[in-house]
Amino acid sequence: MSKPIKTAITPTREADYPEWYQQVVKASDLAERSPVRGCMVIKPWGYALWENIQALLNKKFRATGVKNAYFPLFIPLSFMEKEAAHVEGFAKECAVVTHHRLEPNADKTGLVPAGALSEPLVIRPTSETIIGDSFSKWVTSYRDLPLLINQWANVVRWEMRTRIFLRTSEFLWQEGHTAHADSKEALERTTRMLDIYADLAENYLAVPVLRGRKSDSEKFPGAVETLCIEAMMQDRKALQMGTSHFLGQNFAKASGIKFQSVLEKEEFAWTTSWGVSTRLIGGLIMAHGDDDGIILPPRIASSHVVLLPIFRKPEEQAPVMDYINQLAQALQAQSYHGIPIQVEIDTRDIGGTRNWEWIKKGIPLRLEIGPRDMAADSVFMARRDKQPHEKTSLKRSDFLTQITSILDEMQEALLEKARKNLSDHTKEIDDPKAFYDFFTPEDTEKPEIHGGFAQCHWCGSASCEAKIKEDLSVTIRCIPFDNPPENGQCIGCGQDSKERVVFAKAY
Amino acid sequence: MSKPIKTAITPTREADYPEWYQQVVKASDLAERSPVRGCMVIKPWGYALWENIQALLNKKFRATGVKNAYFPLFIPLSFMEKEAAHVEGFAKECAVVTHHRLEPNADKTGLVPAGALSEPLVIRPTSETIIGDSFSKWVTSYRDLPLLINQWANVVRWEMRTRIFLRTSEFLWQEGHTAHADSKEALERTTRMLDIYADLAENYLAVPVLRGRKSDSEKFPGAVETLCIEAMMQDRKALQMGTSHFLGQNFAKASGIKFQSVLEKEEFAWTTSWGVSTRLIGGLIMAHGDDDGIILPPRIASSHVVLLPIFRKPEEQAPVMDYINQLAQALQAQSYHGIPIQVEIDTRDIGGTRNWEWIKKGIPLRLEIGPRDMAADSVFMARRDKQPHEKTSLKRSDFLTQITSILDEMQEALLEKARKNLSDHTKEIDDPKAFYDFFTPEDTEKPEIHGGFAQCHWCGSASCEAKIKEDLSVTIRCIPFDNPPENGQCIGCGQDSKERVVFAKAY
Repeated sequence: MSKPIKTAITPTREADYPEWYQQVVKASDLAERSPVRGCMVIKPWGYALWENIQALLNKKFRATGVKNAYFPLFIPLSFMEKEAAHVEGFAKECAVVTHHRLEPNADKTGLVPAGALSEPLVIRPTSETIIGDSFSKWVTSYRDLPLLINQWANVVRWEMRTRIFLRTSEFLWQEGHTAHADSKEALERTTRMLDIYADLAENYLAVPVLRGRKSDSEKFPGAVETLCIEAMMQDRKALQMGTSHFLGQNFAKASGIKFQSVLEKEEFAWTTSWGVSTRLIGGLIMAHGDDDGIILPPRIASSHVVLLPIFRKPEEQAPVMDYINQLAQALQAQSYHGIPIQVEIDTRDIGGTRNWEWIKKGIPLRLEIGPRDMAADSVFMARRDKQPHEKTSLKRSDFLTQITSILDEMQEALLEKARKNLSDHTKEIDDPKAFYDFFTPEDTEKPEIHGGFAQCHWCGSASCEAKIKEDLSVTIRCIPFDNPPENGQCIGCGQDSKERVVFAKAY
Repeated sequence: MSKPIKTAITPTREADYPEWYQQVVKASDLAERSPVRGCMVIKPWGYALWENIQALLNKKFRATGVKNAYFPLFIPLSFMEKEAAHVEGFAKECAVVTHHRLEPNADKTGLVPAGALSEPLVIRPTSETIIGDSFSKWVTSYRDLPLLINQWANVVRWEMRTRIFLRTSEFLWQEGHTAHADSKEALERTTRMLDIYADLAENYLAVPVLRGRKSDSEKFPGAVETLCIEAMMQDRKALQMGTSHFLGQNFAKASGIKFQSVLEKEEFAWTTSWGVSTRLIGGLIMAHGDDDGIILPPRIASSHVVLLPIFRKPEEQAPVMDYINQLAQALQAQSYHGIPIQVEIDTRDIGGTRNWEWIKKGIPLRLEIGPRDMAADSVFMARRDKQPHEKTSLKRSDFLTQITSILDEMQEALLEKARKNLSDHTKEIDDPKAFYDFFTPEDTEKPEIHGGFAQCHWCGSASCEAKIKEDLSVTIRCIPFDNPPENGQCIGCGQDSKERVVFAKAY
């Protein structure tokens, strides 16, 4: 690999954002396309991010009484059909298992599916129906409620156009499913889980989000209400980073989740479901990456610091490595937000490529340590959110006392930068012409560059929404909780409206 | 639920061991059958065991340099076909995806699979071929080796006769996959991972195991050598609890995992794979369960202690709950083998059923606490491995200082008991008639009760092995590493043999 002349990633974000994304995923060693259509291989550096997300969410979920469990990968077709809107929403993207063995083909040159199943099985695209079946057995009395369950699982939605992490046929996620005795408690749970997702996004992934609810046309198939968090990427497009659904009694009726109430009346339970997926990693990349690679926010990073020994003569190696190993131990003995500081030591003798590999991988801190640093009892530190050649010499002892605040400072700086991107490219628009201009690329060569998020009045009609979607490929991302009531005219039809909603192009 | 007269589980192990197993799984709240044929729902109490196993293994794997990653659920049929023995071994139990959507049937009464795939996809029964494909891209030079990867995943093997945890169509497991520059290192890795499994089984699950290798007929399809750990259940049948495979260059050749050696020669890598699954939980149940339910070894238990408040008058409730909450905090502040002590508080007012539920769930310690205990600043403790009515009154402060040693004592007692079961029912047999008697049930009503493990000489021929299997449904479980060389005559044919192997009926 030759040393990059200007930037480590080609093309730059400016030149071709979608292609930059593909290249940065590759260069960062997070994941790669697999030979199976639309599926990805999550490499160790990317999977560590997912494990960190899992650990965080498990802790937060548990604190609210949620317990983990595991339900079958397969959903009988008849289960899918129980909730009409639900099956309608997923029918076009279901992987279907129809056979349970392989046997030699007629001319014995290969194998073909055999042993046809009497009822086809759908690979879960989401698990409301199969989990609902269990809930219907577990719940008999109000004493069994609330039932608060989560599962970590793979799901499959057969996507025609896939993009690694953002939209893959198979992805990893967690799906929480709860059942309650009344709608108020279920609604509170829906909001509470959304708040956990917003906390994860802002305080760990350093991605600011809008919290709000979806319009009817963007709701989860079968939900009464879908709440979501929406973030702005550097290309100003929106990414939905998590959803929390209030399902009313729809799935309880479909699955027969009934209970004896305090008043000894038989009632249907009120259910919720909520999930985030490996898509979050795509969001992380697009929110923070630069033209040299990804940038990992310290509080979620796969690892915090890499130590890069430098020596020119063989006899320098042993003392430098001693110095480095001691430093590593001193670092690992410290904790950063409850986790021991994670340290990499890269002893490969591959020239400048080594440093650039770690830049591309986005590790928060790089320390170069050679005989001179050792003699001065210091380290030569580079922060990933600064220019690649901006390095600081620090006394070893100062570095050790300051590392957690340096990491926090970087975390804060990433969040601030992302916040600025969001506010710089969010605009209140009341004029329909200005609205259309906002979403029309100035440069037809770069259709992806447009205005950003438009906060506009909307009358609430699905037809206005559909027309805008057809004209501009722009959708209502959410009706933000934080928008105050305000009278205005719908950006589509001019009818009265009582609040603004957020329109944007989206992943 | 009425209070059991003699034992909490009906039938007892003695009366009907297979049925006892089904009943104890149900009563312990670990898991249940799902409406999907051969699949299970792992309930929170069972899933917590799996999470504890995951945490332990992650730590042990990481200490040997293994990193976690994730590979696709789907394996193209052509990949499966690359290794002849491999596909032969799995073809009869593959779930096959043939369609990628659903559409209304002709009379619009339901949905049918549509969108036929050009190449069917097999749901991974194991991932050697799909991971091998990635490895072939990741490895180019000896500098890329060893490559040490693990994944936690669900796999599917379409079983005709299923039994919860022990043999289900879908199960959860970890599969480690490594590639090495030479066979010696690969063999060392194979053994090293087996040792980790043996450590998990003995020192955490409290299940003693035999470490050894499989005969050719029992090897993993495509492996050069399969190492295993085998345990004896209370019905004297063997359970394979983990396997570690030395794959030689078979899969490297099938997948093209090649590297430039130090001598600049292109060579095929040497690979290994190794796994344990949710089957371990079945082993745990069958090794330690009694006629009142399961017994969880403290070092792997879903939770360590349950606090059961007892009060007869409403005014007693508040002070008792205060006392209990303080006790819970004092317990949670302590750690047991590196994990905070896990405490349950069960305030349900359901009479004696409450205590019996916890007995059935196998929690190591139960504490009943009422006004009298409070007045005496003491607790009333029951250990799950003792008789249900054997309870000890302990000063609160003594309980707090002694709890970790009480848990360790229980852990040790469970292991000892399981060791005794293994040694009591393992016999060296040299006489063929005695061998056949050993495996013939005395009582034809209870075909499952037989001798146990037979340490016998075997000539090494597949035909002797096959005959014994046909006659007795007894197989060679392993050729134990610990068996010393010894001359003798094959139990099947009388030919010369140089070591004893272990014959047993197996799950």
